Amino acid sequence: MKLKYHFASDNTAAIIPEAWDALVSANRGFAAAYGDDEWTEKAANLIRAMFETDCDVYFVFTGTAANSLALAGLCKPQDKIICHKHAHIATSECGAAGFFSGGAGMELLEGELCKIHPHAVEQALDQAFDFHFQMHKTVSITQSTELGTVYTVDEIKAIGKVADENNIHFHMDGARFSNAVASLNVTAKEISWQAGVDVLSFGATKAGLPVGDAIVFFNKTLAAEFGHRCKQAGHVASKMRFLSAPWVGFLENDTWLRHARHANQCAKILGGRLARIDDIELLAPVESNAAFVSFPQAMHQFMRDKGWIYHIVTGDTGARLMCSWDTTEQVIEQFITDLEDARSTV
Amino acid sequence: MKLKYHFASDNTAAIIPEAWDALVSANRGFAAAYGDDEWTEKAANLIRAMFETDCDVYFVFTGTAANSLALAGLCKPQDKIICHKHAHIATSECGAAGFFSGGAGMELLEGELCKIHPHAVEQALDQAFDFHFQMHKTVSITQSTELGTVYTVDEIKAIGKVADENNIHFHMDGARFSNAVASLNVTAKEISWQAGVDVLSFGATKAGLPVGDAIVFFNKTLAAEFGHRCKQAGHVASKMRFLSAPWVGFLENDTWLRHARHANQCAKILGGRLARIDDIELLAPVESNAAFVSFPQAMHQFMRDKGWIYHIVTGDTGARLMCSWDTTEQVIEQFITDLEDARSTV
Amino acid sequence: MKLKYHFASDNTAAIIPEAWDALVSANRGFAAAYGDDEWTEKAANLIRAMFETDCDVYFVFTGTAANSLALAGLCKPQDKIICHKHAHIATSECGAAGFFSGGAGMELLEGELCKIHPHAVEQALDQAFDFHFQMHKTVSITQSTELGTVYTVDEIKAIGKVADENNIHFHMDGARFSNAVASLNVTAKEISWQAGVDVLSFGATKAGLPVGDAIVFFNKTLAAEFGHRCKQAGHVASKMRFLSAPWVGFLENDTWLRHARHANQCAKILGGRLARIDDIELLAPVESNAAFVSFPQAMHQFMRDKGWIYHIVTGDTGARLMCSWDTTEQVIEQFITDLEDARSTV
Amino acid sequence: MKLKYHFASDNTAAIIPEAWDALVSANRGFAAAYGDDEWTEKAANLIRAMFETDCDVYFVFTGTAANSLALAGLCKPQDKIICHKHAHIATSECGAAGFFSGGAGMELLEGELCKIHPHAVEQALDQAFDFHFQMHKTVSITQSTELGTVYTVDEIKAIGKVADENNIHFHMDGARFSNAVASLNVTAKEISWQAGVDVLSFGATKAGLPVGDAIVFFNKTLAAEFGHRCKQAGHVASKMRFLSAPWVGFLENDTWLRHARHANQCAKILGGRLARIDDIELLAPVESNAAFVSFPQAMHQFMRDKGWIYHIVTGDTGARLMCSWDTTEQVIEQFITDLEDARSTV
Repeated sequence: MKLKYHFASDNTAAIIPEAWDALVSANRGFAAAYGDDEWTEKAANLIRAMFETDCDVYFVFTGTAANSLALAGLCKPQDKIICHKHAHIATSECGAAGFFSGGAGMELLEGELCKIHPHAVEQALDQAFDFHFQMHKTVSITQSTELGTVYTVDEIKAIGKVADENNIHFHMDGARFSNAVASLNVTAKEISWQAGVDVLSFGATKAGLPVGDAIVFFNKTLAAEFGHRCKQAGHVASKMRFLSAPWVGFLENDTWLRHARHANQCAKILGGRLARIDDIELLAPVESNAAFVSFPQAMHQFMRDKGWIYHIVTGDTGARLMCSWDTTEQVIEQFITDLEDARSTV
Repeated sequence: MKLKYHFASDNTAAIIPEAWDALVSANRGFAAAYGDDEWTEKAANLIRAMFETDCDVYFVFTGTAANSLALAGLCKPQDKIICHKHAHIATSECGAAGFFSGGAGMELLEGELCKIHPHAVEQALDQAFDFHFQMHKTVSITQSTELGTVYTVDEIKAIGKVADENNIHFHMDGARFSNAVASLNVTAKEISWQAGVDVLSFGATKAGLPVGDAIVFFNKTLAAEFGHRCKQAGHVASKMRFLSAPWVGFLENDTWLRHARHANQCAKILGGRLARIDDIELLAPVESNAAFVSFPQAMHQFMRDKGWIYHIVTGDTGARLMCSWDTTEQVIEQFITDLEDARSTV
Repeated sequence: MKLKYHFASDNTAAIIPEAWDALVSANRGFAAAYGDDEWTEKAANLIRAMFETDCDVYFVFTGTAANSLALAGLCKPQDKIICHKHAHIATSECGAAGFFSGGAGMELLEGELCKIHPHAVEQALDQAFDFHFQMHKTVSITQSTELGTVYTVDEIKAIGKVADENNIHFHMDGARFSNAVASLNVTAKEISWQAGVDVLSFGATKAGLPVGDAIVFFNKTLAAEFGHRCKQAGHVASKMRFLSAPWVGFLENDTWLRHARHANQCAKILGGRLARIDDIELLAPVESNAAFVSFPQAMHQFMRDKGWIYHIVTGDTGARLMCSWDTTEQVIEQFITDLEDARSTV
Repeated sequence: MKLKYHFASDNTAAIIPEAWDALVSANRGFAAAYGDDEWTEKAANLIRAMFETDCDVYFVFTGTAANSLALAGLCKPQDKIICHKHAHIATSECGAAGFFSGGAGMELLEGELCKIHPHAVEQALDQAFDFHFQMHKTVSITQSTELGTVYTVDEIKAIGKVADENNIHFHMDGARFSNAVASLNVTAKEISWQAGVDVLSFGATKAGLPVGDAIVFFNKTLAAEFGHRCKQAGHVASKMRFLSAPWVGFLENDTWLRHARHANQCAKILGGRLARIDDIELLAPVESNAAFVSFPQAMHQFMRDKGWIYHIVTGDTGARLMCSWDTTEQVIEQFITDLEDARSTV
């Protein structure tokens, strides 16, 4: 039986053709190392163009590194990061933010649909914080969220306002930033620096690149010594062109947006089809490229026997189904068909 | 004027065709993430076959990460690493070993031709070390060295013996391990675990891969929790197949060895040609893929004006010329011709 | 108005006379530094006698240091500590455990009366923990707890058993260990190493010393390089005799036990008197030297106006009243009288 | 045979009477914890008066902590501290600066008489420092030095000027700051903030206190969040009055200066007597409270047999003889007599 990883994560898909083509082009002859090449310059400029502002850009290898290096740049060991209790930085990065920062802690907030509310941030900040407690220094949100939901422009602005008024930094984990832009139908700047975001972890791996995320400092003051920090963490590619060239393919001609729209559209179709099946409960509105659904244990077993691989993320039966640039309607249909079989069989 | 990066470093070359082909093959359809894919398994097994032993293998992104993660696995913050004063881990990784380990220090030894002598290691270990001093816990050597020289089997064994007798760990920075094997005409095991090496940072980037080094634990006990350590440092690729597939191309059919021999042979030719030019001094014997030479400042300027890029690493006039899998005799001839022009002109 | 710190904490009292006398004796002539003096040797031996076992003893300056150094000795950055969500190490040490360990995280458990239940520890350990999550490596309990309650011998043994079966370490924050021993009327060994505790932070500051806690390793294997770790953290006194001599006064003739019994007895009297006042709610049984009570806001204001200082620790009205070796029945009476005045006035 | 620790270090002496008296006074009744007491306020104000400026003062437990916390406040993990190769922070604190900062490195300079020269600092700063190298961020000097020599006002100013011009911080390890002030016969401000020092580790343990050093931030901006940093490192005393009260005794009426003058005077006498003995070589001018001398191995053995304890710090025969507030001329005479016996006997 062939295992089917189509919905396990958006990182199970291959490389988008546009990134691949750039990689082919970059693989010619000799080039300067450590980012002094034309591909890296071009990729950084394309990011500046995408965000319609000057900004400092660092290409690193993973989302975990992008988040943690950024947060370490914003927080001392005696500081604290405010985020949602289900934030990826809090739950799924093996404590990377604490490691990179040398001990920074986290204040975990409740919040519906995996979003934090500005008022909850204010409440956290209102607590007395003498030296028995780490100092709140940064607020971090994930866009789109770990539940596939998307902060609106106003929601982000409201958090940005709280951050600004309280003199703390604002970080965005944008592992699926493209999907959020596509979902909201806004420009990239509207949900980033214009809303008060200081630093963005801009993810591209899940969006179709072979490897790599970018750290984008809109607040360039915060980027002081950041190249050194990246190097010290082993996150500067010597053959940087092979890391940055795919970004060029990803960024040119709004390729990132086209693929994100496709993935979102697939999730919407998938969600729509799932909603029509009895015994299946959608756990959250489908706003980006994920559908979260719950169905009985026996059906999960049936699906696994059919070869489908996906993650149970809520309780024993809550599944996460991720769509990617390479998801096809055909595969969605096959999944739905199998699921309907599951329902009638078990 | 086109800049010529041919001798600037072995990381200015492109990707070896065999690695590229594997990358092409890996870029098909969906696959499990985080290393649970067939390419990663195959690559790890090929490394085991190459070293003719069972061993734990971790694929990470850079040589800095490979060295530092390995050393952090071997050393607590209150420990010390013994190495040559020109060791890459001491001079060129922005203090990464100290960062990853949370504070481990270094005991820097003198030593001719960039090699440390077992006796010097013993002398370091003989020092009293009450708690005012960090404890010696690991010795690290670079093979081939930062000066392009190569430790012999006996030299490594002698250091391994000192490490064993003193109950400290033995790490090898093998950023150019292939070149050392090719140079000595030995098997990989003879200069690694059979000589007492516990952990090897096995470099492939400089040998022709787009990105990535492997950490190879011959002493598997020392690898406990190592996957967690890599993840926490952002050094686990989600789309691992794109990191590991090139390794398959690199390792199959002794491809790595063939390319290393070529690079070494180029350096030998280059060194031979250089030796015959007056006013040029070879700074070290050419034993791997590097030639270190000194010539007058004015000649350097001439060469730079011709577009040649390379690093001055010793004083004001000592240049490092690296050969790679993609170095050609034609380029060597061109370089020599320009250098002879330089000499007669300036 | 004179501020009355009697119940604010057990660290607002002065030095017990026996410790003071030892300090006087120690302050004569010249002595070896860094612990090579007779007072330090004697103090360590008295701890060994108290616990009726061989053990490694390190005298450090604060409870935060004792806990964090111990936990850093037990945990790597990629590890996790299991403890109660109200554990002092989690709430009140400014993230020290994360700092000392270079990033270790915490798994916070619920649990009545500030105690964790062995079953909750097992559940935590039952979670899958691939490398996205830090590894559970240590369980830590506070004895007596942050709520003044005391784990019974059987409760500790049960946690020790879970730790042993799952191959994790067992740490005890004994900032008020003396009070727990006095409360249970057991020997020190019964609630420490005989119950499975590997390392104890043995607090003496709150018990009447001017400064200093001891880290006691019953599992001596875990103490490897620990002196170096302490030194690196600035926690080795050069004039160690002035840190250790008070311990001698504290430990000889069961002085520690006598003072702890007194403090516990005071809390019992205080609790009994409080229980008889209407509108006052005891928030936890008085089992050691603390009484936790709630009464209306206006009464708090009245008490503050009378000069009483104490901490509100639960909601807006839950107060913590700590008794110490220097608490007198007279002061308790005065406090109760004022409180009754408060009640009839407001 | 009674061991004689008189010259082993200035930390082998007891407590100065003035500090002891303050300790006696502080040990009365109840007081607020964590520094909110009158003794701590008074001690901090006396330091401000001594330096004739406003400054932020933190009382910590050891010199290692004072230096490392200060340096961690000044340096990120990717930064580097410039100091003398024999600086205490580099040689004798078990890598504490690297631990506290999470990885900051050191650039070790040569320099006669244990002093660094401004020009050497400039040369260090002139090196290219792309991200392969840690960034120079702080220069640190020890006053008086590890060799008992003393930087002049002009020498400090010159280093302060280099620091200022290059936008790096200036830290002074003043473990024996009092001795330096006494030696130069200047005011405290002249060799600290007026000369450009940003942060001073002001040592009092070696000057006669039981425990404790102060971190003095003349550049108050650099002290942001510093209380949190101290707490996180376990370096905030809960019963702070017992740490700060001795400082009051030390600081009032220029007590510190009187004792420092005495210790310096003793060293001068000792040095003078030593200079007159044949076969004895003074290794450095006696400028503060230390004499460094070399004499034959056999004489050392003789002295050890007589019970004298002191440290060999240079080669096999270079001894460090420290004088303290409690050194007497009688003891010096006894030492000299024994040494003369040694010379005539061996």
